[in-house]
Amino acid sequence: MRLLSPLALGTATAPNRVVVPAMVTRLSGEDGFVNDAIIERYVRYARGHVGLIVVEATAVHGNKSGPLLRLSDDGFIKGHAELVRRARAESDSLIVPQIIHFLKVARSGWRQTIDQLSPDDIERIIGEFGAAAARAKAAGYDGVELHSAHAYTLASFLSRMNRRKDAYDGRSLEGRLRLFGRVFAEVRSQVGPDFPVGVRFLADEAIKGGYSLPDARLIALRMAQLGVAYISLSVGGKFEDAQQRPGQPLYPYTGYSGDRCMPDERYPALTHVGYAADIRAYIRSKGFTTPVVAAGKISTPEEAEGILAAGQADMIGMARQLLADPDWVRKVEAGRRPAIIPCIYCNVCKQLDETFHEVTCFLWPKGAHQAPADDPAGAAPAWGEGNGHLRAEIEDGQIRLVWDKPASGTIVAYDIYRAEDDGPPSVVEGVKHTKHLDRAVLGGLAYTYYVRASDNAGRTSPPSNAVRVDMPLPSQDDQREPSHARV
Amino acid sequence: MRLLSPLALGTATAPNRVVVPAMVTRLSGEDGFVNDAIIERYVRYARGHVGLIVVEATAVHGNKSGPLLRLSDDGFIKGHAELVRRARAESDSLIVPQIIHFLKVARSGWRQTIDQLSPDDIERIIGEFGAAAARAKAAGYDGVELHSAHAYTLASFLSRMNRRKDAYDGRSLEGRLRLFGRVFAEVRSQVGPDFPVGVRFLADEAIKGGYSLPDARLIALRMAQLGVAYISLSVGGKFEDAQQRPGQPLYPYTGYSGDRCMPDERYPALTHVGYAADIRAYIRSKGFTTPVVAAGKISTPEEAEGILAAGQADMIGMARQLLADPDWVRKVEAGRRPAIIPCIYCNVCKQLDETFHEVTCFLWPKGAHQAPADDPAGAAPAWGEGNGHLRAEIEDGQIRLVWDKPASGTIVAYDIYRAEDDGPPSVVEGVKHTKHLDRAVLGGLAYTYYVRASDNAGRTSPPSNAVRVDMPLPSQDDQREPSHARV
Repeated sequence: MRLLSPLALGTATAPNRVVVPAMVTRLSGEDGFVNDAIIERYVRYARGHVGLIVVEATAVHGNKSGPLLRLSDDGFIKGHAELVRRARAESDSLIVPQIIHFLKVARSGWRQTIDQLSPDDIERIIGEFGAAAARAKAAGYDGVELHSAHAYTLASFLSRMNRRKDAYDGRSLEGRLRLFGRVFAEVRSQVGPDFPVGVRFLADEAIKGGYSLPDARLIALRMAQLGVAYISLSVGGKFEDAQQRPGQPLYPYTGYSGDRCMPDERYPALTHVGYAADIRAYIRSKGFTTPVVAAGKISTPEEAEGILAAGQADMIGMARQLLADPDWVRKVEAGRRPAIIPCIYCNVCKQLDETFHEVTCFLWPKGAHQAPADDPAGAAPAWGEGNGHLRAEIEDGQIRLVWDKPASGTIVAYDIYRAEDDGPPSVVEGVKHTKHLDRAVLGGLAYTYYVRASDNAGRTSPPSNAVRVDMPLPSQDDQREPSHARV
Repeated sequence: MRLLSPLALGTATAPNRVVVPAMVTRLSGEDGFVNDAIIERYVRYARGHVGLIVVEATAVHGNKSGPLLRLSDDGFIKGHAELVRRARAESDSLIVPQIIHFLKVARSGWRQTIDQLSPDDIERIIGEFGAAAARAKAAGYDGVELHSAHAYTLASFLSRMNRRKDAYDGRSLEGRLRLFGRVFAEVRSQVGPDFPVGVRFLADEAIKGGYSLPDARLIALRMAQLGVAYISLSVGGKFEDAQQRPGQPLYPYTGYSGDRCMPDERYPALTHVGYAADIRAYIRSKGFTTPVVAAGKISTPEEAEGILAAGQADMIGMARQLLADPDWVRKVEAGRRPAIIPCIYCNVCKQLDETFHEVTCFLWPKGAHQAPADDPAGAAPAWGEGNGHLRAEIEDGQIRLVWDKPASGTIVAYDIYRAEDDGPPSVVEGVKHTKHLDRAVLGGLAYTYYVRASDNAGRTSPPSNAVRVDMPLPSQDDQREPSHARV
């Protein structure tokens, strides 16, 4: 299986092709030090044998922010060294921090923009990236990732919204690339040739006036020319379309570009794989073998393997899916595919982040700070007589499902699987109670449902009984009758 | 060539696979009557042998608006009949009007939304669509297209932003589809079984909270179930992200979703073909053969034929490309491929529309209200000694081009062709003067340029001399030196 085969990232080697991209946790204190909760979150991914663990955005500078890890001073090295030590004790997962520089944002709505930076400010930022990378190396990390995505400083220079008119001229591609080139050169000079330096950047800004694939191909090529260890792709997550919320600082991911950054059920599976395939093919055509990481609603081992087999990407990034189930890789390795807890893309994690709460998963037990421990030995929830007794009725062109609780297990959530006509089943929703109204069904199609229950130890029941519903087309009478029509 | 083969659209047959989608012209008066300028604009497409001509959005109701064609009263039929008669005299192009209902928009920024519509309002709208379709048939059109895209009434019901909670419930797919179903049934009952009724709708709303491909597949399937003659796909163009401009009514296409609706040079060629391919494959999998029209930066006969050959779409929509050159089809038929004037996607046409000016093309002669007549016999502009003497120099990581005027011809514009490394040349810009600064080039790549001049009769010169530029990578010195670096 390609998915489980190792891959060289510069001078390091990931044990498999799975990446957990940087995800905000809000577990750290405002002091920026690594704490037990942070260690527990990342050790969990190491225990799950994720090939490359990217630790959440870690500041290279001291600007005030909410809970945010720091590498802006040597005093922060110790905590990171402990995090690395603890992760290493679990597995041979690679672990790197994503180092970030960001500008000031005020609750008033004012925010600092890159055109306000003086030449001295820029020289300072370059130095801060270099020093933070050196601290990452001192802490024992396997490498470092330069955060050049979303709404932050490096991405703002790469952006089509870059309004500078100096050597970092936003009107020219080389001007927009200049700061990244200088930062990379400084980081390389600080960490030496044997320390992998990866990058995450945007394949598409997804904002009015922003760049899309044509610029992204060339930005990726420059990164390959410079010798990045890997190119991890994201989309959107910008300030330009963020929604101002009273009394809160402007926060990216709250606008349309935030929808695109973390696509929910409204978007197709593998939403952004096409970007990775295009960019990878482009840099390959120029002779560069730089690994490309695809991300965006990739959930199953079959999807992941298919992307690798088709040469659309070299590694598979899964943020929300690995938050839901950090043991995804171990379960694939052990042939326990059905034990994987599938992400339902409900984006409760995204909403928690947007409202400045600790980031957890809807599918975890209530109040849990981490995913439940994987316990293959323990007994999974079992349905009683009638196998859940799932039943369905059609109501106003929607399908109402009800079922019985399992006979055993402390149930945390129910995953609802649906197959359209005779197609393959997939998870369409996750709920906490024994009922669901499916509003996304179309008359003229047949739907087959079953439910699986997961307990507070992350164990899932077998499928319930299956129920098939043939949705009738709206009749001419429905069409004419203005009030709700019973079918 | 598939592109030039006929295709049945319900009971009518298009002579080829090329469609000019509805494009605002702002040529009609506020009175809503067909005038000479309107006739000239559409007759031009018939002369160019476009397979399916969709006349710009034509109101089914009397709401005040800017210059906008109407079919809201029998008094409007005569003008449309004359337009049809004049088009028929030119060729066997099919011609249909796009009939639209829209809600009120005030300069204050207030706009009417669909949740404010009473059951009676909705019954009236349904009746207005039926009556307008009957008038289109009376005028002699080959069919009618229901405008269910962008920011208008039918699209607002299909939208995920539909806030109604009655029989048109925005929370359920069938609720969102209900008005379209009722409008289609009423139109069909008014025009009978032998009059093609096509539709245009959004494959992706491209707004925060909007729908994307998964809903679009099911919306398209419902349209196929109902028996639409064709499904024409667009993207974006919504009110929700439109930019309020002082003293002007809120106008769609001014926000990010407007960027997506008419993608410019920042977007790749064939930007939206993937949507058409996905939706077409989906409805085919359900047994429906409804023709699907793809649009969005499709420019060349090779691109168009490739899309048809790959089964990604059944017809090729080209709005801006056919505005630039309405004779595109005739030139392909006559084997005069090099005579095609390529659209450069500068979106001057889009800007003219947004600022409420008559919509013309940047590549047309100054002050022209229509594209220049195709004159194969006339002499194309010829380069003098030195063949244009195109030369290039590298300046601050950009490439400056200058060339000499042709020896003959009244030149309207110069198209700049660029090949990257040894790739195929394509048009990257169109300019009015004999110089250009290419800011979108990357160090480490080689670029080969040539220029073609087009005259006031739409004739294009042969390519100028070609010039090759090897862009150096930024040197370590550049990277360190803070001011502009001369290469």
